[in-house]
Amino acid sequence: MTLTRTQSTFAPPVMEARRWLEGVTFPQDRPLINVSHAAPVDPPPAGLRAEMARLVQEDPGTHLYGPVLGLPELRAEVVAQFSTAYDGRIAPENVAITAGCNQAFAATIAALTGQGDQVILPTPWYFNHKMWLDMAGVQAVPLPTDAALLPDPDHAARLITPRTRAIVLVTPNNPGGVEYPADLVTGFAELAQAHGIKLIIDETYRDFHSLAGAPHALFTDPDWAETVVQLYSFSKSYRLTGHRTGAIVAGTALLAEVEKFLDTVAICAPQLGQRAALWGMRNLSQWLAGERAEILDRRAAITDGLPQLADRGWQLMGAGAYFAYFRHPFDLPSDRLAQQLVQQAGILALPGTMFMPEGDENGSRQLRIAFANVDRAGIAQLYQRLAGFTA
Amino acid sequence: MTLTRTQSTFAPPVMEARRWLEGVTFPQDRPLINVSHAAPVDPPPAGLRAEMARLVQEDPGTHLYGPVLGLPELRAEVVAQFSTAYDGRIAPENVAITAGCNQAFAATIAALTGQGDQVILPTPWYFNHKMWLDMAGVQAVPLPTDAALLPDPDHAARLITPRTRAIVLVTPNNPGGVEYPADLVTGFAELAQAHGIKLIIDETYRDFHSLAGAPHALFTDPDWAETVVQLYSFSKSYRLTGHRTGAIVAGTALLAEVEKFLDTVAICAPQLGQRAALWGMRNLSQWLAGERAEILDRRAAITDGLPQLADRGWQLMGAGAYFAYFRHPFDLPSDRLAQQLVQQAGILALPGTMFMPEGDENGSRQLRIAFANVDRAGIAQLYQRLAGFTA
Repeated sequence: MTLTRTQSTFAPPVMEARRWLEGVTFPQDRPLINVSHAAPVDPPPAGLRAEMARLVQEDPGTHLYGPVLGLPELRAEVVAQFSTAYDGRIAPENVAITAGCNQAFAATIAALTGQGDQVILPTPWYFNHKMWLDMAGVQAVPLPTDAALLPDPDHAARLITPRTRAIVLVTPNNPGGVEYPADLVTGFAELAQAHGIKLIIDETYRDFHSLAGAPHALFTDPDWAETVVQLYSFSKSYRLTGHRTGAIVAGTALLAEVEKFLDTVAICAPQLGQRAALWGMRNLSQWLAGERAEILDRRAAITDGLPQLADRGWQLMGAGAYFAYFRHPFDLPSDRLAQQLVQQAGILALPGTMFMPEGDENGSRQLRIAFANVDRAGIAQLYQRLAGFTA
Repeated sequence: MTLTRTQSTFAPPVMEARRWLEGVTFPQDRPLINVSHAAPVDPPPAGLRAEMARLVQEDPGTHLYGPVLGLPELRAEVVAQFSTAYDGRIAPENVAITAGCNQAFAATIAALTGQGDQVILPTPWYFNHKMWLDMAGVQAVPLPTDAALLPDPDHAARLITPRTRAIVLVTPNNPGGVEYPADLVTGFAELAQAHGIKLIIDETYRDFHSLAGAPHALFTDPDWAETVVQLYSFSKSYRLTGHRTGAIVAGTALLAEVEKFLDTVAICAPQLGQRAALWGMRNLSQWLAGERAEILDRRAAITDGLPQLADRGWQLMGAGAYFAYFRHPFDLPSDRLAQQLVQQAGILALPGTMFMPEGDENGSRQLRIAFANVDRAGIAQLYQRLAGFTA
């Protein structure tokens, strides 16, 4: 009997990590520091909550099915803001709203690939990307990155086969934190274009990019829609994770295919999340700028405190958006290290093995720290515990 | 180049039907009667809206990620109510919450099948089931039904091959309206069990079933979880279509597989919809009884008015839940008939061709009337227009 789609992939890593906490007690003076989770832990700001309360009371459309590709006003707002931010030409027909960015990726892959096709993913990769490719019957072709976690287009070129349908970039990167330089992104777009494949660029964390301007120039190419598929999430920026709202920016022919998938798996993205995202885009730009400044300050704290960790052999490979990605100094596979960190240091972080192809020894040496929910004082504590830890 | 997953299926029928309205104007004294849509058109009752407004203001969890398999309190409430309703043994570990019932089906199929497998669907079928099977690389094997739209287990038995993984029943049926007798459902469960395959029973419309008691006895079998997968939607019952909330009741091993799919495609079902469904289950049973009585009254109106249509050669094949399914008297394929009905009679209904395998001539003779949103007076008008229509 053949494997089913879900049997072709592994169990969700985040839940495995959560199980490591079972039965472990943390002393009051040393509570758990949870740096496993790439999500806000607070609700949206009061203004947005008030608007949502108004919507459920007064806007009947909040409770009804809506267009498969999303609320027209939200699509238009994405067009307006992204066209400016990227100095590009994006039309309303280029935007689809999805129930979160994972669904945006799933829909894009369903539209682009068939059984036995291939998609290139730089490693470390985002495990849900790998899981969906497994379930879709698509081979995830790992593209190793350098010491700064940057992928190389020339290396990618050598991995392209007649079955390759896309290259996926995540920038700012999950899990690596690294921000891909604009030139590098352009290099990948040119490679994809030359081979008639797509460049999927997942910008879930774009609103926390350290650059104030456009992080890449892809949308300035008038023919971008032939090659580029951009994925986005409203979840992190406006603290809407529980409402499931993401987006795809792509060519209209591709979105007609995406529409089939969304109609069948989702019917439509949740209506309240879409309306909340719209209100957020229109009213929270100042607030979001503050959020970004805070995240960038935490990132600075990650760098500032580094010497005490470097002394113990830790090496920071990448830091940005919500994540710091480390090479650890221990002669211990990272999944065992992560469990020891829970028990001995009261730290929950995800091991590199969760972001790497099975058997890739680099994964064994790496650890992801999702620092977004930890303030400067917390980061100082985290570093102290890490520096004091011996395997 | 092979077809992509989405290229392996057709465009969403509901949207095609909506396009038939473009450019058509309806006179004021004869407005459009839209019987194409299987969804409530009104928002939830005031009490539920008020609770939702409170939740977005006061319950931070409404805005955050939650467990992949759903809110524990909602799972427990489904267990309590369904165990009673079906006189069966259902545990919390048997329930998963999904972002709508379409997603429940997609997750179930991903957990049960691989490329090239087969699933048996009685015809007429629910088109999103067919679309998902197409995209999953699974062959939908049509099981013709009789004049009363009932499928035959003996016929199904002859369609089972080594690649068959499941039989899908939808009861009350979409599009056919027919309610499958409990004995027939048991017959299918026995067939599935004998062949080691699953019986997927989609009960999206269960709350509008004409029987007051349990519509089937599947859950009274202590070993039900080896064979039965039940799908449910909170959308129709509590008017929550825009919030995307459904459920799967199945064995724990299967739900561990389902969890991988949901984690990757959805992360979690929207949190507000889950909380709203929970409140609805706890507080709206009286209100829902009234909704059911109204739907059953509309169904009675469908039957009462039948003679005038029968005189013109229309034949009612099935009526129940939201749907009446007709055999029409015209020498015209139903998809062309449906477009003429828009233009000449101001009626939007979906043609049988949308619910049938391509080339099945029965589909050409059939029409689905989703009557749930049309009251007695509206049904009288609808019948008058249909009776007066000549192709």
